Amino acid sequence: MELVRVLSGKVAGLVTNQNDQLTGAEILVRTFRSAGVDVCFANPGTTEIPLVRALDKATDLRAILALFEGVCSGAADGYGRMLGRPALSLTHLGPGFANSIANLHNARRAHTPIVNIIGDHASWHLPFDAPLASDIASLAAPVSGWQRKIARTEDIAGDAAAAVAASMDGAGQVATLVFPMDFQQHLVGDGAAGAAGGVRPISGKRAIVASERIEELAKRLRDRPPVVFLLGGDALSERGQIAAAAIAEHIGAKCFAETFPARIERGRDLPDIDRLPYFPEPAIRALAGARYVVLVGAREPIAYFGYEGLPSRLAPDDSILTLAQPSEDSAEALEALCTALGVKPAVTSRSMQRKPVTEGGLTPDAIGSILAQMLPENAIVSVEGGTCGYPFTTASSTAARCTLLTNTGGAIGQGLPVALGAAIACPDRKVFALQSDGSAQYTIQSLWTMARESLPVVILIVANHRYGVLQTELARSGVNVPVAASAALTSLDNPKIDWMALARGYGVPAHQVTDTATLRSALASAIQAEGPRLIEMVL
Amino acid sequence: MELVRVLSGKVAGLVTNQNDQLTGAEILVRTFRSAGVDVCFANPGTTEIPLVRALDKATDLRAILALFEGVCSGAADGYGRMLGRPALSLTHLGPGFANSIANLHNARRAHTPIVNIIGDHASWHLPFDAPLASDIASLAAPVSGWQRKIARTEDIAGDAAAAVAASMDGAGQVATLVFPMDFQQHLVGDGAAGAAGGVRPISGKRAIVASERIEELAKRLRDRPPVVFLLGGDALSERGQIAAAAIAEHIGAKCFAETFPARIERGRDLPDIDRLPYFPEPAIRALAGARYVVLVGAREPIAYFGYEGLPSRLAPDDSILTLAQPSEDSAEALEALCTALGVKPAVTSRSMQRKPVTEGGLTPDAIGSILAQMLPENAIVSVEGGTCGYPFTTASSTAARCTLLTNTGGAIGQGLPVALGAAIACPDRKVFALQSDGSAQYTIQSLWTMARESLPVVILIVANHRYGVLQTELARSGVNVPVAASAALTSLDNPKIDWMALARGYGVPAHQVTDTATLRSALASAIQAEGPRLIEMVL
Repeated sequence: MELVRVLSGKVAGLVTNQNDQLTGAEILVRTFRSAGVDVCFANPGTTEIPLVRALDKATDLRAILALFEGVCSGAADGYGRMLGRPALSLTHLGPGFANSIANLHNARRAHTPIVNIIGDHASWHLPFDAPLASDIASLAAPVSGWQRKIARTEDIAGDAAAAVAASMDGAGQVATLVFPMDFQQHLVGDGAAGAAGGVRPISGKRAIVASERIEELAKRLRDRPPVVFLLGGDALSERGQIAAAAIAEHIGAKCFAETFPARIERGRDLPDIDRLPYFPEPAIRALAGARYVVLVGAREPIAYFGYEGLPSRLAPDDSILTLAQPSEDSAEALEALCTALGVKPAVTSRSMQRKPVTEGGLTPDAIGSILAQMLPENAIVSVEGGTCGYPFTTASSTAARCTLLTNTGGAIGQGLPVALGAAIACPDRKVFALQSDGSAQYTIQSLWTMARESLPVVILIVANHRYGVLQTELARSGVNVPVAASAALTSLDNPKIDWMALARGYGVPAHQVTDTATLRSALASAIQAEGPRLIEMVL
Repeated sequence: MELVRVLSGKVAGLVTNQNDQLTGAEILVRTFRSAGVDVCFANPGTTEIPLVRALDKATDLRAILALFEGVCSGAADGYGRMLGRPALSLTHLGPGFANSIANLHNARRAHTPIVNIIGDHASWHLPFDAPLASDIASLAAPVSGWQRKIARTEDIAGDAAAAVAASMDGAGQVATLVFPMDFQQHLVGDGAAGAAGGVRPISGKRAIVASERIEELAKRLRDRPPVVFLLGGDALSERGQIAAAAIAEHIGAKCFAETFPARIERGRDLPDIDRLPYFPEPAIRALAGARYVVLVGAREPIAYFGYEGLPSRLAPDDSILTLAQPSEDSAEALEALCTALGVKPAVTSRSMQRKPVTEGGLTPDAIGSILAQMLPENAIVSVEGGTCGYPFTTASSTAARCTLLTNTGGAIGQGLPVALGAAIACPDRKVFALQSDGSAQYTIQSLWTMARESLPVVILIVANHRYGVLQTELARSGVNVPVAASAALTSLDNPKIDWMALARGYGVPAHQVTDTATLRSALASAIQAEGPRLIEMVL
């Protein structure tokens, strides 16, 4: 008891604000604003109340509420992918943060800059192991490239600035800052507040690839050996793709995007660079015969899962060469390689032939083609789920210019929040979420925030009422007709989720379509709408 | 590449099952069945496919699908609290498991026996850091009293048995077993299968309190000093409460239940032992003046959050005495204390006066009283959310005999899954979920599994369309009328969730009620229904 009194006493008298002083929470918020952070996706609790009050005074730092923390982290991922700078994901203690981990796992794989702010118990209260206390550091470590706990009031501005800077390190990463409630409440004088004003705005610059590496690669490629370029990161920007395609044409190479790019530009103005197939057999076939598999902003291709009898590493033996690591400037490196090879980085004409749509009932191919045809200029499409994701990506080569965002880490429930965050980041662009029904359920609460913020998101739900990928895996393992637990754990048809009702529940107008004609008309109407619209596509 | 081939080769030829052999997954499932585990709440992925197939053959181990992993862990918590033995929570790799952490945090605080099964990448594939790979051990540590990763095929049966045994250790705990996919697939001969058959059935027995401790306490109590008994764990069983109340009456002491008991028996047949208040000021008042605060299966009372100027420890200085730790047999200890004091443990008559219900619009008091009046015999009530939880708990002293389950760890989103798990555990008892609207959203997918399994759960949603506790905390900090971020981050009224639509979306019939009369009729009808019913109570 004595200990408590001493600790309590230490901060007594600091709770009433004075005009010339700021709370620790206000210092933090001011530091973030000085760095240029302007959005906070939040699901706060009691230990974040001083932060909430500090946000009251920060009209240029927009606080957006989500009903579930996975929506916060996923939205910050979408935001960061589109703008290349961090949003805040504000969550409540260990358990609240834990709900945000799955989508942070995806963000980690996407190299997205994100700053997590987690309120913690007052430092003097923490030793008493109150019900909500837990080991936040252990929870945060697997998804955080950087983490720190604020240990002194004097450190608040510096720690906040360090978190923002850390989030921009390398190709971008998740930075986690734990902020005990007492330090949020403490009053801090002008000095610390001034320090916050001196923070440099966010800037990230990828490392430039050394010219020796480019020269050495150019030397190997001049003989035109069989080559496959595997592009990731900013190699999938407009510049990167144009340079890569020009090189590929020059030396007769193939180009693939990594299977799950954080962001890929697509459309008829760009080369047609499709994704490396998902399953190992076709991926191995796509890479077979390559003397070199040249990585540009991508990691070595690895099987998504380990299948008995198939290798983990998909590229031929000794074929891997690296032009640029994910943390390096891939677009610049590709252009430098163009120069070294005497190639002009320019889009060359290519086939714009579209696969004909079979009218009538909805199929993954028809959905992919129709969406690609109808995309407005400059759309963003968040793709989650295999059923329609692959056909659409392929079809998008003849679409209007667009940006695709995919599920980088395989933690499902990422598509809707990423669409949400992208819509906040790019208010002038129409956003689409092409989304499998099973995956949508993990962060279904996203719909509410989309309605609340009146975001122009068109949600296309592929309603096949099953975990398609698991039934495919069952078939791969020899179970063609699931029964018993195999059926119970992969079928979603009892009851069938009523997507029209669910969307209405969260304030999102919805349409159900069952054929190509009604899909077209529903899409046309949804594209015109100001706020979110959900289209349930019954397969 | 060489390494991969060697590792792959090591297990070649083991994928086709033979009649006399079992897969590793089948060994695991068989071991659990031998131990008496009969329910698995699951949200599997590719790395759990062999487990799913093993469950196909285990008709006495019921596999129940949830659309989100937090439903699995919360349901396992509800199941374990009711039966005192573990259900399985089956999740997919680190990110899938991460979604189950929040409710495992609650289960840890509740001392609920749970066995988590987490599929992992094949051991030979793990080093390649495929997209879904992550540090599962770091994620699991904060919520697991025991964790292990299966490292060899020969260990499967032993590790599974150890996990079940560990879950029953002490007062019960969360045990986590990580199962690489290749070991799930390996074929194992008769020896290992036989070992699984020799597993002892689950049994848990709390340690008996030494008679010296009971004698010493009895000595101090004989002088009838001012005493408060704080009861938790099995001190809140029928036996525990009857013994505690008899002692309290004999020496003129007060009794409280801990604020968030895992399980408390209530109703007119039992003594009226209400919960210690939540906020520190009334809790301190309730304990003030006590010479001794006697802990029986409860931890020392600690403030839920650290508030400046208020202590963490709520009991008077040097007042804490412990009759029984949570891991000890509290009911037995209380009865032994009765004997030592010469008290007969029996229910004495007490006031059955009910607070009159103010008819008309719905208030927390009215809701609490009406639910208490209408509860059928032997109901289970999962309580989450402060708005109606406290009035109902108080009112339940004159209800029919019932069991209350509360949110032990403060990770919200626990009430619906716990109700689900309790309904699976006790198919003959009617289950109620008295649930705040904000909290319900974190695991809203529970509704679907309730509909799928046609569980007799009555869900009462307190629809005040705000985070009430946060607005209370804002008021405590001086913000009486939230504006700007304070309003944006605590109000849920734009849009208002349409609970009728949401329930229909998941296949649960729903009613909306706005006054005491319609609440009564909706409750009467819901109690008669076979499957789940949701009642939105508009405050």
